[in-house]
Amino acid sequence: MQRLTITSAQLQANHIQLTLEQQHYLRRVLRLQAGDRFLALDGRGQQWLAMLTDSAATAQLLDAVAAESVPLPQVVLAAALPKGSGFDEVVRQATELGVTEIWPLISDRTLLRPSAQKLTRWQRIATEAAEQSERLVVPVVDEPRSFKQLLQTTAADQPLYLCSARQQQPHLLTCLLERPSAALLVATGPEGGWTTAEVNEAIAAGYQVVSLGSTVLRAVTAPLAALTLINAVYTLKSERLKGV
Amino acid sequence: MQRLTITSAQLQANHIQLTLEQQHYLRRVLRLQAGDRFLALDGRGQQWLAMLTDSAATAQLLDAVAAESVPLPQVVLAAALPKGSGFDEVVRQATELGVTEIWPLISDRTLLRPSAQKLTRWQRIATEAAEQSERLVVPVVDEPRSFKQLLQTTAADQPLYLCSARQQQPHLLTCLLERPSAALLVATGPEGGWTTAEVNEAIAAGYQVVSLGSTVLRAVTAPLAALTLINAVYTLKSERLKGV
Repeated sequence: MQRLTITSAQLQANHIQLTLEQQHYLRRVLRLQAGDRFLALDGRGQQWLAMLTDSAATAQLLDAVAAESVPLPQVVLAAALPKGSGFDEVVRQATELGVTEIWPLISDRTLLRPSAQKLTRWQRIATEAAEQSERLVVPVVDEPRSFKQLLQTTAADQPLYLCSARQQQPHLLTCLLERPSAALLVATGPEGGWTTAEVNEAIAAGYQVVSLGSTVLRAVTAPLAALTLINAVYTLKSERLKGV
Repeated sequence: MQRLTITSAQLQANHIQLTLEQQHYLRRVLRLQAGDRFLALDGRGQQWLAMLTDSAATAQLLDAVAAESVPLPQVVLAAALPKGSGFDEVVRQATELGVTEIWPLISDRTLLRPSAQKLTRWQRIATEAAEQSERLVVPVVDEPRSFKQLLQTTAADQPLYLCSARQQQPHLLTCLLERPSAALLVATGPEGGWTTAEVNEAIAAGYQVVSLGSTVLRAVTAPLAALTLINAVYTLKSERLKGV
């Protein structure tokens, strides 16, 4: 069934106020007609069965739908902004891979200073990707922050990982298996990697420096590798707890 | 140091015959001049230190360079071709993540029938990505094959994994940890997934059907998740054997 993300402000007693963009999407892109049903999601874990009517601007609310409780870990991805439009794909794939929050990061070697429209664009990509990958929760894409701001805003009571291409670090997979956690933050670097100063400041702030393997990953690929490992270990631990 | 992939036919006694494209790349793109050094790689694990001379068409061979022996598993990725140009990025990221061979796959639900130029393009992307990620071995991109051909050509003495979005399968990470292997094949499906017939044929041919987690991954993301897990578990096992 087709899926549409709405805001709670659009919810009325027994119908949904559709924006012009949503009307276009449902009727022109998905080619739904009056009487056709779709799933409306609020991006926070709630979903409803809805039906298009003859009225273009509203859809009828039929029923609340129980969410499947597939648990995902709470993962903040702090990713240094790559060159060009590469962050679009990072947001899309990170959403598929189950990220909770995305913090665009401006590190010492980051070349890009994103415009305000970029943030709107990334949030829209996250919303679309969440619909496509059937996630109930849309990841939040936060304002770009500097590396210093990152170190100031992170909570020390959860694992904090800084991915680095240096060989002598333990592999992220090793750390995840040894210290399972349902909430963590992982930071990935820019083209050219972190500066030595950044790595040292992160260690002082409580970060564990980890490796993603022996090959050199681009700034757009490292986030996906990190999220894949985090999601997989979390699933593994959940399965074991359930006795599967 | 800058890296350039050459064929063994370009190697002479004490110099390298450069193609026009390579001359352009070294002098115009990388802006190297006579006297500047670069690494020449044959894509099969050998590398040499080389130097540009005043002659445009050749570079002087200075020395063979010992390869760092970072072991990677032998992984064949059989990936159903996604829509549009999505396979370009699959080839690029799979190369970064350490794949050995890439087999483009035409499954029942694959829409794309690639042209002959596509294969040349993918091989060039693999070569460039291997240089960027400092891999000594360039992955081979094979001719597109049908799903039936895949089942006929795979060796049964190594693990064969078919990734599927079905929830009830064991996670690939679980299988990799339980059955470590230095050589394996992993197949990822098209948009819309494998047909039931394909899954059944694969099981009959000795494939283990595995999950990549609870979220739904696109055809361009599933290969990267699978390769990330394979490379990470292999590194983990190697580190443990070395007592790290």
